[in-house]
Amino acid sequence: MKNFEFHNPTKIVFGAETVAQLSRLVPESARVLILYGGASAEKTGTLAEVRQALGARVSREFGGIEPNPSYETLMRAVEQVRRDEIDFLLAVGGGSVIDGTKFVAAAALYDGEPWEIALSGGAKVRRALPFGAVLTLPATGSEMNNGAVVTHKATHTKLPFRSPLLFPQFSVLDPAKTFTLPTKQVANGLVDAFVHTVEQYLTYPVQALAQDRFAEGLLQTLVEIAPQALAAPDDYATRANLMWTATLALNGLIGAGVPQDWATHMIGHELTALYDIDHARTLALVLPSLLDVQRDSKHAKLLQYGERVWGIRDGSDEQRIDAAIARTRAFFEGLGIPTRLSAYQLGQEAVEAVLAQLQAHGMTSLGEHRDIDLARSRRILEAAL
Amino acid sequence: MKNFEFHNPTKIVFGAETVAQLSRLVPESARVLILYGGASAEKTGTLAEVRQALGARVSREFGGIEPNPSYETLMRAVEQVRRDEIDFLLAVGGGSVIDGTKFVAAAALYDGEPWEIALSGGAKVRRALPFGAVLTLPATGSEMNNGAVVTHKATHTKLPFRSPLLFPQFSVLDPAKTFTLPTKQVANGLVDAFVHTVEQYLTYPVQALAQDRFAEGLLQTLVEIAPQALAAPDDYATRANLMWTATLALNGLIGAGVPQDWATHMIGHELTALYDIDHARTLALVLPSLLDVQRDSKHAKLLQYGERVWGIRDGSDEQRIDAAIARTRAFFEGLGIPTRLSAYQLGQEAVEAVLAQLQAHGMTSLGEHRDIDLARSRRILEAAL
Repeated sequence: MKNFEFHNPTKIVFGAETVAQLSRLVPESARVLILYGGASAEKTGTLAEVRQALGARVSREFGGIEPNPSYETLMRAVEQVRRDEIDFLLAVGGGSVIDGTKFVAAAALYDGEPWEIALSGGAKVRRALPFGAVLTLPATGSEMNNGAVVTHKATHTKLPFRSPLLFPQFSVLDPAKTFTLPTKQVANGLVDAFVHTVEQYLTYPVQALAQDRFAEGLLQTLVEIAPQALAAPDDYATRANLMWTATLALNGLIGAGVPQDWATHMIGHELTALYDIDHARTLALVLPSLLDVQRDSKHAKLLQYGERVWGIRDGSDEQRIDAAIARTRAFFEGLGIPTRLSAYQLGQEAVEAVLAQLQAHGMTSLGEHRDIDLARSRRILEAAL
Repeated sequence: MKNFEFHNPTKIVFGAETVAQLSRLVPESARVLILYGGASAEKTGTLAEVRQALGARVSREFGGIEPNPSYETLMRAVEQVRRDEIDFLLAVGGGSVIDGTKFVAAAALYDGEPWEIALSGGAKVRRALPFGAVLTLPATGSEMNNGAVVTHKATHTKLPFRSPLLFPQFSVLDPAKTFTLPTKQVANGLVDAFVHTVEQYLTYPVQALAQDRFAEGLLQTLVEIAPQALAAPDDYATRANLMWTATLALNGLIGAGVPQDWATHMIGHELTALYDIDHARTLALVLPSLLDVQRDSKHAKLLQYGERVWGIRDGSDEQRIDAAIARTRAFFEGLGIPTRLSAYQLGQEAVEAVLAQLQAHGMTSLGEHRDIDLARSRRILEAAL
C-alpha cells in the first residue's frame, strides 16, 4: 500500500424525503444562489421543494448550467454572485451542476482571470464560497469530492481541477429524485461510476486488500443493479444502491493508497470537447480498447478483475483477460451505450483530431505508469474504431 | 437501504514515516498535552518522534492511561489540562488512549460532573478541545470516529458515548508502529475489527448492496491477513492492511443505512468491567454463541456471510449456518483467543453476575430487533460456558 492522505469532510444526508432538511443544513443567515441545469429541476418539483426548505432566507436562482458546464456560462453566475452579494451556493442537479458550482465558488473570490483556476488544476484556489448540493443524477461523485471539470467552449478545452477548499459542505441524496431521469442518463450514470472505479482499481497490485475488495464490491453492485435500474425507474431500493455506489466510486476512499490510471478520462474528455459526446459515453468508447492495449502492464489486476467481478476462472491467462475485457464491453453495450467510434459516425479523422488535442493539452504520458504516449493513445483509439 | 447521515471529517495521514507530519498537522501556536498509555510509547521511540515533530510548541505529557481507560485516571488528565492551560490534545497509542483523550477533550470544557458525559451517551457534550491521534495499535477504529468507552472503576461501569464534536482532527497511521506489539494485542486487534464489522453487517437484509460488499471485503481481508499478521511482526504490507481495515471497520461507512446489532459489545463490556478480560476477548466469547441463539432472525445474513466470507455453499440452510458459526469460532480460536468462558475459569456464577450488571445498566433489549432481553442474554452466555 502506498502512503496516502484521506480527508473528506462532506456531510451526506441520504434517503427519502431528505430535501426538506436543507432548512437545517443551510446557514440561517445565508444569502443563497441556487444553481441548476435545465427545465427538469422545475418540472419535477425539486426546485419548489428547495425553495420551501430555504424558507425566509434571501435566495436567487441561476439556471441553464449545461452538461459539461462551460466557463462562459459559469462566469455569468459569478457576475450574479457578486451583484447579489451571495455568500452560499446551492447546486441542484447532477455532476455538471455541482462541478459548475465548484468553479463558481472558487471564481467568485478569485483575484485574476478565473480560467487560471482550471489551468492550474485548482492549485491557485485560495478561497471559495461555501456550498452544498442536492443531487438528482447519480453518476459523477462530484457530490462528495473536491474535483470538477469545466469546458472552455471557445477553445474546445475541457480541464479538471481540484482543491481542498472545494468539498461540498453537505450533499442531500434522495434516490426518489432519480425516478424521472431519462433511461439514457441512468445508463450513463452506471457507466460513469463503473469507469471511475476501474480507473482507481485496474492498474497493478500494491497489496491494498481492502481497497481492492471495496472497488470490486462497487463493480459487482453496479453489474447487479444495472438491469433493474434501467427497467424500473421507480424502484427505490435499486436507485438508492445506484446513488450511493456512484458516490462511493469517487469520494477518495477506493483510491487511497493505490496507483491510479485516469487515461480513459483524459482521452474521453477530448472526445467530449470535440464531438459533444456525453462524458460517460466517451469512457465506454475508450476503456475496453485501453484495457486491451495495456493488457501486459495490467495483467495481474485484469485476472483478479475477471475472477472477482465476472467469475472468470477458466482458460489461460490471456483467454481470461480476453473474457474480462469482452464482458466489460458487453456490459456497456447491454446498457445501450456503444463502445465503437463508428456508432457515432467517427472514423480515422477523429483519431487524428483527438491525438492533436491530447498533444495540445500536454496529455502525452498518461496512465498509472505514464507510458501512454501519443503512439499508444493512437493504438487505443484505433482499436475503438 | 435505510435513510442515513454520514459525516466523518477526520483527516487520515497513512503510511511509513508519517509521524513527522505532526509538525504541520498540529497548530503552530497550540499548547499541547500528549496523552499515552504505558512505557512502550517511550521505549519504542514513538514519543521521542512525537516530541521532535512538535518542535518548539509548548507541550506537556500525561502517561498511564490504562486499557479500558478509567474515569478516575482521566480526571487527573483533566486537572492537568486546566492547570497547564492546554488547548490541544494529542493521543499517542491505541483505542484506549484515544477513547480516553475523547473523554478528556469533552470533560475539560464541561460544566458539571464529567461522568454525566458518559451517562448521557455523549448527548451532554456541548464543547470539546480539538485533538489528534498517533495510532500505534490497530483495533478499535477510535482514530476515525466520534465514539469512546470509559470505565468507572469504583462502580464497575463501562459506558459508551459519542458526539459530533469528538472526531479527531487528524490521525496519523504508520503501520511500522505496530511491529513491536505483543502478538496477543495483534490477535485482539484482528478480532476487534472483525466483530465491529459483524455488528454492522450480520443483522437482516435491507438491500444495502455496497455496504454488504464493503463489510464482506473487510472480513475477507482480516481472514486473509491474520496468519501473516501474527507470524511476521515486521511485514509492513500486512500490518498496513490490518491498520487500514481496522479503521474502516468502525468509521461509520459500513454502518450507514443498515440495521446494527451491538449486543455482543454490550454483553462483552460487562465481562470486561467484572473480570478485566480484554475487550476483544470478550467479543470472541459472546459472538459465536449470540449468532447461534439469534440464528432465526439473522437467517438470511448468516447464509450470505457463510457464502461470501467463508465460501460455504453446500448443505441445508441450517447446516450452512452451523458451518458459518463454526468457522467464526475456529477463526478466533486459531488466533489464540478463547471462545468459552471456561478458558477464563468462569462458570455459571459469571453468567448470573453479567446478567445482574446488564439489568443494572438497562441493557434489557439489545440487538437489531431489540429482542435480546435478559432471558436471551442468559441463553447466549450459557451457550458460551
